Amino acid sequence: MSADLHLPIGIFDSGLGGLTVARAVHRLMPREDLVYLGDTARVPYGNKSPATVVRFACEDMQFLMNHGVKAVVVACNTVSAWALPTLEQRFQVPVFGVILPGARAALAATRSGRIGVIATNATIRSQAYNKAILARDDTVRIIARACPLLVPLVEEGWMDHPVAVSVLREYLSPLLKWDIDTLVLGCTHYPVLKKAIREVAGPRVRLVDSADTCAEFVKERLGYLKLLDTRRRRAGVIESFVTDEVERFEDFAERFLGEKIVPARKVELPSV
Amino acid sequence: MSADLHLPIGIFDSGLGGLTVARAVHRLMPREDLVYLGDTARVPYGNKSPATVVRFACEDMQFLMNHGVKAVVVACNTVSAWALPTLEQRFQVPVFGVILPGARAALAATRSGRIGVIATNATIRSQAYNKAILARDDTVRIIARACPLLVPLVEEGWMDHPVAVSVLREYLSPLLKWDIDTLVLGCTHYPVLKKAIREVAGPRVRLVDSADTCAEFVKERLGYLKLLDTRRRRAGVIESFVTDEVERFEDFAERFLGEKIVPARKVELPSV
Repeated sequence: MSADLHLPIGIFDSGLGGLTVARAVHRLMPREDLVYLGDTARVPYGNKSPATVVRFACEDMQFLMNHGVKAVVVACNTVSAWALPTLEQRFQVPVFGVILPGARAALAATRSGRIGVIATNATIRSQAYNKAILARDDTVRIIARACPLLVPLVEEGWMDHPVAVSVLREYLSPLLKWDIDTLVLGCTHYPVLKKAIREVAGPRVRLVDSADTCAEFVKERLGYLKLLDTRRRRAGVIESFVTDEVERFEDFAERFLGEKIVPARKVELPSV
Repeated sequence: MSADLHLPIGIFDSGLGGLTVARAVHRLMPREDLVYLGDTARVPYGNKSPATVVRFACEDMQFLMNHGVKAVVVACNTVSAWALPTLEQRFQVPVFGVILPGARAALAATRSGRIGVIATNATIRSQAYNKAILARDDTVRIIARACPLLVPLVEEGWMDHPVAVSVLREYLSPLLKWDIDTLVLGCTHYPVLKKAIREVAGPRVRLVDSADTCAEFVKERLGYLKLLDTRRRRAGVIESFVTDEVERFEDFAERFLGEKIVPARKVELPSV
């Protein structure tokens, strides 16, 4: 039995959207301890360059390593799209991103083979979803679009505002014209907009939310690596850290998780 | 005659919006050399906490100090709102913000004494405009509103999009109901939205753009401090630095300045 078994799982995101992934992991593996880091002082990553995203990701990862984690979930599509190879090379723990599980779920969902992907500028630019999907099935067709206004809309709390629907109509119209039957929500903020997305996309388009599929993937991989803590009797604890002030954390945590969680602490990240 | 006379003027902003201030300073003092820094790796500051804004501002300022500037213009409302006292205490050069000139211009513009202010979350939270205006005239009435979606709209390039008008209608409606006659554009990104703002606010509301008023203020103060380079014959040079990749700089520079400028270089900021 591995000595690492009882260590927590680390999860990080550029901000607080990754809490949707933390929630999904917690629900699926309720006895695992989790350490969550949101780099709220430098959020968003989605409009930054690849080099900057990789640098920030290494600092986030080092922080979690200093907390003695047994594995790390990159709950940020932008980081998953650009930094996974570097993180896997530099750090000696398993690292799981959200792109691969999202790609698998999209392939499982589509009937027509016409898949839409919406994400941040940086994720779209990486073509990470296209590559991950086409590597598994090169007969499907993919149409991808960057939607940089969706994260600010969520952060403003305008999920049910008519403006959210107008913005989504503009972003989704080329995808819908192209008759997609599956839409990958390629950013951890987007599931919060599901209601408005459904209104615009209609009932026939299946929405792929990376949080749930990522949690299933992590459980499968940890099981395979014999890193699941199957003997623990107590419930797992979620410990949260942010790089900017903690005041807004509770608001956001409630919005993203739909439940109250243990207050976060503010930290400074190590340079790497 | 001061030995500092020939040194450049430093200008910094969280991103590239401050280029509007750089342009105004360059037009008004065409023989002064300028060093511009945009902290594009950590933009935006407007939704961060005061402590984080002050920390980032000190690092930006230190970078400019290392370039031997004779004075610094803080071309960012959020930094001007929170960090000016710290910058003035820590660094041995004159520091000018955008709030005070904006407040003076608003008072000069209003007839009815009902002034509206729009800005980022952090600037509104600071009440910096309210304090600066009321300190000069406590008979005016001020209504202020945070507009966090405007910067992302500008960065998406949707200045003339119907969504920009819908968002502005939502943000400005309480101010217009309240019958303001003057509106302070309290963020360096907002002047790019002037056309849509005019459409929503109507012709009777005067718009106060802090870039021009700030440049006039800087010229007046530098003249008073005998720091204006009145003898130089050649045109001043603008040297630009960013903390994220330079690729997007040219696009944005053209959008904000309406003209091409010397390419920027990417830098790492010193820790302070």
